[in-house]
Amino acid sequence: LVSVLSSAIIVYRLPWTWKCSKLLMKFIHAGLNTIAMILAIVSMVAAFDYHNAGNIRNMYSLHSWIGLIAVIFYALQLFLGFAVFLLPFAPVTLRAALMPIHAYSGLTIFATVIAAALMGITEKLIFSLTSPAYSESPPEATFVNCLGLLLVIYGAIILWMASRPHWKRPPEENVKVLRPMGGTPEGTEAESTMTDGNNADKPDMRISSEAARKQNLKLDEAGQRSTM
Amino acid sequence: LVSVLSSAIIVYRLPWTWKCSKLLMKFIHAGLNTIAMILAIVSMVAAFDYHNAGNIRNMYSLHSWIGLIAVIFYALQLFLGFAVFLLPFAPVTLRAALMPIHAYSGLTIFATVIAAALMGITEKLIFSLTSPAYSESPPEATFVNCLGLLLVIYGAIILWMASRPHWKRPPEENVKVLRPMGGTPEGTEAESTMTDGNNADKPDMRISSEAARKQNLKLDEAGQRSTM
Repeated sequence: LVSVLSSAIIVYRLPWTWKCSKLLMKFIHAGLNTIAMILAIVSMVAAFDYHNAGNIRNMYSLHSWIGLIAVIFYALQLFLGFAVFLLPFAPVTLRAALMPIHAYSGLTIFATVIAAALMGITEKLIFSLTSPAYSESPPEATFVNCLGLLLVIYGAIILWMASRPHWKRPPEENVKVLRPMGGTPEGTEAESTMTDGNNADKPDMRISSEAARKQNLKLDEAGQRSTM
Repeated sequence: LVSVLSSAIIVYRLPWTWKCSKLLMKFIHAGLNTIAMILAIVSMVAAFDYHNAGNIRNMYSLHSWIGLIAVIFYALQLFLGFAVFLLPFAPVTLRAALMPIHAYSGLTIFATVIAAALMGITEKLIFSLTSPAYSESPPEATFVNCLGLLLVIYGAIILWMASRPHWKRPPEENVKVLRPMGGTPEGTEAESTMTDGNNADKPDMRISSEAARKQNLKLDEAGQRSTM
């Protein structure tokens, strides 16, 4: 679940996807998130079945509360994302306005899912390890603790990748249609350099073309992020 | 601890701090983080004392592992932040290079601390509630679950505030020294409007002055975030 979820998050940041069309990328993003949603539902059903089979109450723990809320928000996120960004009906302004919220809530749900998983691991270790108990650090406890730690490290790496501005997908050709009156030849040049995706770290000698590029990027933001 | 930590995170985003000098804000940020560090150490000592007094082993749980690692990284963050951003020795380029890492690791440590707290709450509820047990949802369990939920909501709000680009601190006067050859009168105008901190949401009619402002902002980023 976490790995499919994270793949869905970083699909826009991977170099190989720069060659894909934007629409294909959106389909990959939506498809991976749908798979993650199905896995989340399967795991919730499994948890309820396990509880019912063993006469354990449902939904009493903080883990279950946070997990359920995360899944509900995730379903909402998926539905809204589908309705606004995948279906061709929403106006560009609405898409541009919702995109920061969509990105933020996606990452927040991801972090919350990791927190819920860590709480679930803690519960499971306490309830399942009896002789020797969790507090006596049997090999299983150490092993699962390491897995939990890896989960945190993994989540931190994904959040790093998702929050780097220069790992954003570079602008596409359709940008040119949207270029405003302020657009300059230098802007065009800088932009076409950018399409090969490696001038983000290049020391920038041309300050004024940088300004023009910035301007294009900003205006382009709404355009490329909110049209099909 | 979490509230002092979050105050330290959002101190740069609060409107009233726009009137403070940058140095004073840095001192507030560093001071709040130092208080949070002291609270973290006190709480760790308390946990070890409690374990030792009750003959409970230390450092066996995932909660303790993640908590200790978070505190170690936090100490490192505090030390590096002090050495690089507060002491006047580090060159501007180093400060500009380390700032995104400093901001990212600050927020990641914050999220990790919340996850560790949630795991600690889960452990405590399981171990302390015996008759009736946690699984029977006594009022204490529901109450503490609600507190845990509020912690998640609180963390999400802080991360939202910290990640909004237009809630960044507006540039200061020292920017003018750093303005490059591309600086235009429109740029100056846009910038002076910005000092009262309310044109971030204003619909922008002047595209070309917007470009100049963007340019100043970008170049200023390194300047204002990495000099005293």
